Amino acid sequence: MAARSGDDAPSARSSVDGYRERVLAALGPLRPRHPETVPLAEALGRVLAVELASPIDLPPFRNSQMDGYAVRAADVAAAPVTLPVVGEVAAAPGAPAALEPGTAVRIMTGAPMPDGADAVIPVEDTLAGADPASGDHVRIARGRAVGEYVRDAGSDLRAGGVVLTAGVRLASRHLAAAAAAGITAVEAVPRVRVAVISSGSELLAPGELLGPGQIYDSNGVAIAAAVRAAGAEVVLEGRVRDDATELEALLDAAIGLGAELILTSGGISMGDHEVVRELLEPRGAHVDVLAMQPGGPQALGSWGEAAIVPVVCFPGNPVSSQLSFELFVAPALRELAGLPAAGRETRVLDSAVRSIPGRRQFLRGRRTAGDGVTAVGGPGSHLVTALAASDVLIVVPEDVTELAAGDPVEAWEL
Amino acid sequence: MAARSGDDAPSARSSVDGYRERVLAALGPLRPRHPETVPLAEALGRVLAVELASPIDLPPFRNSQMDGYAVRAADVAAAPVTLPVVGEVAAAPGAPAALEPGTAVRIMTGAPMPDGADAVIPVEDTLAGADPASGDHVRIARGRAVGEYVRDAGSDLRAGGVVLTAGVRLASRHLAAAAAAGITAVEAVPRVRVAVISSGSELLAPGELLGPGQIYDSNGVAIAAAVRAAGAEVVLEGRVRDDATELEALLDAAIGLGAELILTSGGISMGDHEVVRELLEPRGAHVDVLAMQPGGPQALGSWGEAAIVPVVCFPGNPVSSQLSFELFVAPALRELAGLPAAGRETRVLDSAVRSIPGRRQFLRGRRTAGDGVTAVGGPGSHLVTALAASDVLIVVPEDVTELAAGDPVEAWEL
Repeated sequence: MAARSGDDAPSARSSVDGYRERVLAALGPLRPRHPETVPLAEALGRVLAVELASPIDLPPFRNSQMDGYAVRAADVAAAPVTLPVVGEVAAAPGAPAALEPGTAVRIMTGAPMPDGADAVIPVEDTLAGADPASGDHVRIARGRAVGEYVRDAGSDLRAGGVVLTAGVRLASRHLAAAAAAGITAVEAVPRVRVAVISSGSELLAPGELLGPGQIYDSNGVAIAAAVRAAGAEVVLEGRVRDDATELEALLDAAIGLGAELILTSGGISMGDHEVVRELLEPRGAHVDVLAMQPGGPQALGSWGEAAIVPVVCFPGNPVSSQLSFELFVAPALRELAGLPAAGRETRVLDSAVRSIPGRRQFLRGRRTAGDGVTAVGGPGSHLVTALAASDVLIVVPEDVTELAAGDPVEAWEL
Repeated sequence: MAARSGDDAPSARSSVDGYRERVLAALGPLRPRHPETVPLAEALGRVLAVELASPIDLPPFRNSQMDGYAVRAADVAAAPVTLPVVGEVAAAPGAPAALEPGTAVRIMTGAPMPDGADAVIPVEDTLAGADPASGDHVRIARGRAVGEYVRDAGSDLRAGGVVLTAGVRLASRHLAAAAAAGITAVEAVPRVRVAVISSGSELLAPGELLGPGQIYDSNGVAIAAAVRAAGAEVVLEGRVRDDATELEALLDAAIGLGAELILTSGGISMGDHEVVRELLEPRGAHVDVLAMQPGGPQALGSWGEAAIVPVVCFPGNPVSSQLSFELFVAPALRELAGLPAAGRETRVLDSAVRSIPGRRQFLRGRRTAGDGVTAVGGPGSHLVTALAASDVLIVVPEDVTELAAGDPVEAWEL
């Protein structure tokens, strides 16, 4: 009664791509999503769900582009001329009086143009003076055409025009345009609410004192951070021993907190204390061993009663779980968040690598000069620092067992 | 008595690069910075200030790579052999008993290897059985060498070894490695504390009802977001009318909140209500008009008594202020935060552009197919939606007044 084992068992294995398709299908119900209203001040980095139109003209009124004098262009056509200065308009609340023919008003950049005025003479083309007899006046050295140094209302955008298109990832310049239009909140692509659960009696929270047989849980913090980096939100991060009651309670808590997706690590291989498998398999979870390394064992189930949410179960080895997240879940979360897919490129191996026949191998790699790449650490799924020292995954297809230095490989950006 | 005016005055102007150097020098005192201790769960995206060493071996103890049987390799050299199964070791707290010669124990992936055991036989190479007379036993089909399917303590990293190097921007895989080493908090590059102040009596907060002569303040939200995107922290975001008392109070509040850098917009050109200039120039601020468009007027001063912090003053036009931030402040903040510089590349103009002699012009542009780029909107510094629709700035040097379609240009990534 031979049985299949952990990551490295050679028995018949399922297709990596087939499993990815099944996970994608399970995440399908997350797709039609209502936008989330987000205050502008918190919207940096969020993705706009709905096109944003301006309720007002931009700029909202005709104003001066310069510090200078608002005039009627016809009055200065025969420059040099001297005009009486009958007032001043600042960039401040209020509407200026109309400009009488044959007069000028001093005007500041951004200040509203008086009715009747149709050009601005920049201050450097003028010579101002005051005369006890005739009062303030300005000597204008050269004429200006109608509209010169005047910004018309709506010259940037008309009321009703599109300020930002749907799908834009909001940077500071987008927030500026929305604010200029008086917008206080935007309709953003909502974040998927995700619960992250680590399982394993051997796991200890970092900071506690490690005893014999114990290791620190790295999957919790890593998967939670990866979920956030993929544009989703972590509503629960927890850890359970190999105890079905503990796991059941945490799964229920996740549902209670509104989780739309639950990710677990550990407890799904063929050993004797596989709590995730024991709890979820009788409820219809499908457990699989995939033709890949690391990360062979995978499971896909669901939890909840009123709300039934998908549960994607990764193996417990830290490299396996992180890689499984990148491979099966991150692309869907990024797409749901409106973020671009992670980069994939072809690079050239610096040195030879080997792989197991029939497995798609994901080696940890580091980019080198030009378009080179070097494998980092070995294939072991416990090598967390080697993964931390990597910046790409090197993908070796199922039917390839050896690659030489100089061979091109697919490299996935981490 | 001709005077210089706003952005577009043609008089003698100062060097853009010279001013940038002066701002960099003013920000110099921010440089020697004490690292900030950040809990691991909040450290995603932060930059590690200090190399991180592991206090423990990784993995912390010798453990099994597979579900199977821990044996002495010498006992299975003559496989097939049958060994009595004298116990089981799970991945759980506790130390297993030593393995007696001629026996096997069932072992789970990640479980500690018993003393005396030096190899693991994967379960798929075995046939287990129970016999009322001889008890549990396992038939082992093939031998394994010493160390096979065994992960030695420290085989990923020895205690004292470097988990993460200084300067790493923490992604999920880095947090995983730190957590695996039992680390709960990291020493991160501290965020520069920045205050952002908009000035102008014409400014209204988005959401309020716009009256005549009023515009919505877009600089506050935009500069604050740009500060955050550059890896710094906003400790105050405020708005003042053209009133020195209001401005003074807000500058004091910024100091009180621990601001290390204050950014203002508006109030520094040559008009009559230039509150930033009026308040700061008598205290030694240097006001300049630079050979650039947009963003000609700039000022650099300081505020505070016990703590004196630099105040970098941008012009009020929204495009000018955003561009001034990108040009003069963002590079220093990104460097202080340990972030890479924004991308600069050479692209090819899709259509001709013109520029003013003696000014470095920053046109808003959008990348087009291949390595093309198109100017978006005009040169006006009020065109906030055109800036929002851009993804690069096209730089036209001071001595260039015309560029033809097909000419190469420097494009700065926004």
